Amino acid sequence: MSTPNLAITRPRGKPRGRPKVDPNDSETRQRLIRAGLECLTEKGYRAVAIDEILAVAGVPKGSFYHHFSSKADFGLHLVEAYGTYLAGLLDRCLLNETLKPIDRLRAFTQHAEDSMARFDFQRGCLVGNLGQEMATLPASFRERLVDVLIDWQRRTTVCLDAAKDCGELNDTTDTEALATFFWTGWEGAVLRAKMERKAEPLRQFTQTFFQMIETY
Amino acid sequence: MSTPNLAITRPRGKPRGRPKVDPNDSETRQRLIRAGLECLTEKGYRAVAIDEILAVAGVPKGSFYHHFSSKADFGLHLVEAYGTYLAGLLDRCLLNETLKPIDRLRAFTQHAEDSMARFDFQRGCLVGNLGQEMATLPASFRERLVDVLIDWQRRTTVCLDAAKDCGELNDTTDTEALATFFWTGWEGAVLRAKMERKAEPLRQFTQTFFQMIETY
Repeated sequence: MSTPNLAITRPRGKPRGRPKVDPNDSETRQRLIRAGLECLTEKGYRAVAIDEILAVAGVPKGSFYHHFSSKADFGLHLVEAYGTYLAGLLDRCLLNETLKPIDRLRAFTQHAEDSMARFDFQRGCLVGNLGQEMATLPASFRERLVDVLIDWQRRTTVCLDAAKDCGELNDTTDTEALATFFWTGWEGAVLRAKMERKAEPLRQFTQTFFQMIETY
Repeated sequence: MSTPNLAITRPRGKPRGRPKVDPNDSETRQRLIRAGLECLTEKGYRAVAIDEILAVAGVPKGSFYHHFSSKADFGLHLVEAYGTYLAGLLDRCLLNETLKPIDRLRAFTQHAEDSMARFDFQRGCLVGNLGQEMATLPASFRERLVDVLIDWQRRTTVCLDAAKDCGELNDTTDTEALATFFWTGWEGAVLRAKMERKAEPLRQFTQTFFQMIETY
């Protein structure tokens, strides 16, 4: 276990023979979150033990429990962090006024594909992974996962409203329903890209989706 | 652990103090498969131990290993059994010539919703569950899961071809691409219905899908 780039302190009276990470260090917390996202977007919640997170993060167990009360608490923070990360990516794409609104949504799907390709299509969407595991997760996850999806859908609805305003979508389009449809289908496409470990499921989904909304 | 409705035999020289199930009994095998489908459509592969399957099936461990060489072998047989079960449901709906082709596909989605409702939306699609877990499953699962999806899509394509023939779909519709799109999105909808534990995600998906193909 390595602890690069961290201030090392040794709590008085507790010599343990290995370097200690400052448990108050917000960078330690960030490293745990990053390691958690890496592991859980690939393997889901149940398959990943805290020890694996610690090994990837290079952080001792005490620091984990300084920042998080339990694996479930950690998982909920991961959902929040992932929701925020993806909301940022969505905003960068969907608020990019140099593109027409529908092309902004296309750009998001391309970014997401590029991101999955970087990890050889082994990492999927944390919300999809944990949603699939809902039967064995603490009940507190349900509301948080749904909230994150609703937030992404809200941002997507704004983009589809802009598409309607500029005539890219029919005046009568229910943009909220279409954003929900997009996200439901997109989660299916990401699941399938992970299952098949290739880009085609994403491309097949987006090609048909964007063709369909042209005439919708 | 109970063993109802089974022929009970006791192997010579191996008195164990509890009734034995005939390991050659194909009903025992079916009970294991049924129990496996119950458990894995809810919790996925990793979260379910063989002991849980045995308890649900009311079958001793020896019988399990008579029929299956390992949990992975059992899992692959579950995928096959689930694929066949759903292909049968698809055929009953999609080959029902008393309905117009698109209504046959609607009937399938309604059957699937009814089926999820019977288990309070806690059981999803085995292929979706295991697909989501692909990173931690034996590699042999990938091809089998993909094959099952392709089989369902093929049956759906035939129905969409019939819809094209009778003017319910545009002449230029790529029915194979549309069937793939349907299944990718439907898996997303089932995942989300399980996550939210309610019917709405299925209904939102089907409502928009069937509206969209009217103008596609």
